[in-house]
Amino acid sequence: MKIKVVKRLLEANDRVAEENRRLLKEKGIFTINLMSGPGAGKTSVLVRTIEALKDRVPIGVIEGDITGTDDAARIDALGVPVVQINTEGACHLDAGMVREALDEIPLESISLLFIENVGNLVCPAEFNVGEDVKIMVLSVTEGDDKPLKYPLMFRESDALIINKTDLLPHTDVDMEKIRDNALSLNPGLKIFEVSCRTGSGIPAWTAYLSTL
Amino acid sequence: MKIKVVKRLLEANDRVAEENRRLLKEKGIFTINLMSGPGAGKTSVLVRTIEALKDRVPIGVIEGDITGTDDAARIDALGVPVVQINTEGACHLDAGMVREALDEIPLESISLLFIENVGNLVCPAEFNVGEDVKIMVLSVTEGDDKPLKYPLMFRESDALIINKTDLLPHTDVDMEKIRDNALSLNPGLKIFEVSCRTGSGIPAWTAYLSTL
Repeated sequence: MKIKVVKRLLEANDRVAEENRRLLKEKGIFTINLMSGPGAGKTSVLVRTIEALKDRVPIGVIEGDITGTDDAARIDALGVPVVQINTEGACHLDAGMVREALDEIPLESISLLFIENVGNLVCPAEFNVGEDVKIMVLSVTEGDDKPLKYPLMFRESDALIINKTDLLPHTDVDMEKIRDNALSLNPGLKIFEVSCRTGSGIPAWTAYLSTL
Repeated sequence: MKIKVVKRLLEANDRVAEENRRLLKEKGIFTINLMSGPGAGKTSVLVRTIEALKDRVPIGVIEGDITGTDDAARIDALGVPVVQINTEGACHLDAGMVREALDEIPLESISLLFIENVGNLVCPAEFNVGEDVKIMVLSVTEGDDKPLKYPLMFRESDALIINKTDLLPHTDVDMEKIRDNALSLNPGLKIFEVSCRTGSGIPAWTAYLSTL
């Protein structure tokens, strides 16, 4: 009985995700569903990405948080259109929430849309929101055991950004283990090692973005 | 309709949680539901705690993970009884899963039970599993904005262990902001600053444990 409810929920979500996808395609917008656990640095990745690309690519952002508008304020300060979704307890974005947010974004004037999901390494990976690709962030300080413990998001993502590499010398984390285990789950995964604090690795990431 | 289903789910869970609580009380066992986001260091806290207490207090552990047995192996190496729950996708433990695990733990020979939840800063806080107290871990590298962005777990917890303090000098994280915001949500919250890497702060935490 429980499984049936969840399945109907996922099917209903997929229908709305498909509508979002059609609308975004019509407007010529490429859409990225950006996911991670809490505090891996999704917003910092966005800030670095916008700083690097905003003169060439018109970008919009949908911010997903349980509560609050801190992340949206950081994006707004860069002069980029941003809408905040507050899920009020829900642990992931769904396609219906994104559908509402799309009404508040100037779709005619952007060509790249980032949807920053709620910080959660589990549930967001289960819900399509109408994106072209899913991209995830993992911080080195979360540990090298994360791919095998939270496999779904690593499987669903097109690219993995490994953030906070500036902290590597102060930890026992094995970067090769992160890479090997992530690739064992998803051999096609593109991996970028970055530090949003220093800017290291950001050019390779934004160069990849331009190929999408 | 969706809300009704969730409510029934939570009520059914609470009933089983109450049975777990009764069973654990009968056996004279004090039970801690240990929660955090992914990679904050729950298992490292457990390892340090067991090392400090195991000669005085008979401890048992239930490990909750989506998949795998890495964490249970770390606990097993310390000679403490441990059972692994694999949720197979589910983003939190529920009372029914813990009920099954209790059959596999030698309840007659322990007096302190840790239930390490799935790494997720959102959903575990919504589900009682029969614990006496909820205790959460936050790592400094997750950032000082976490209490206000993920308020429920901070509200539900009796104590907050702030881990990875050895990394503080290498970050811009404001420890006072973490403390102030966590206390604004939950004025009674006990806060411990620890580094499981160096052992710093562990004695104050284990001294508190002994008062529970």
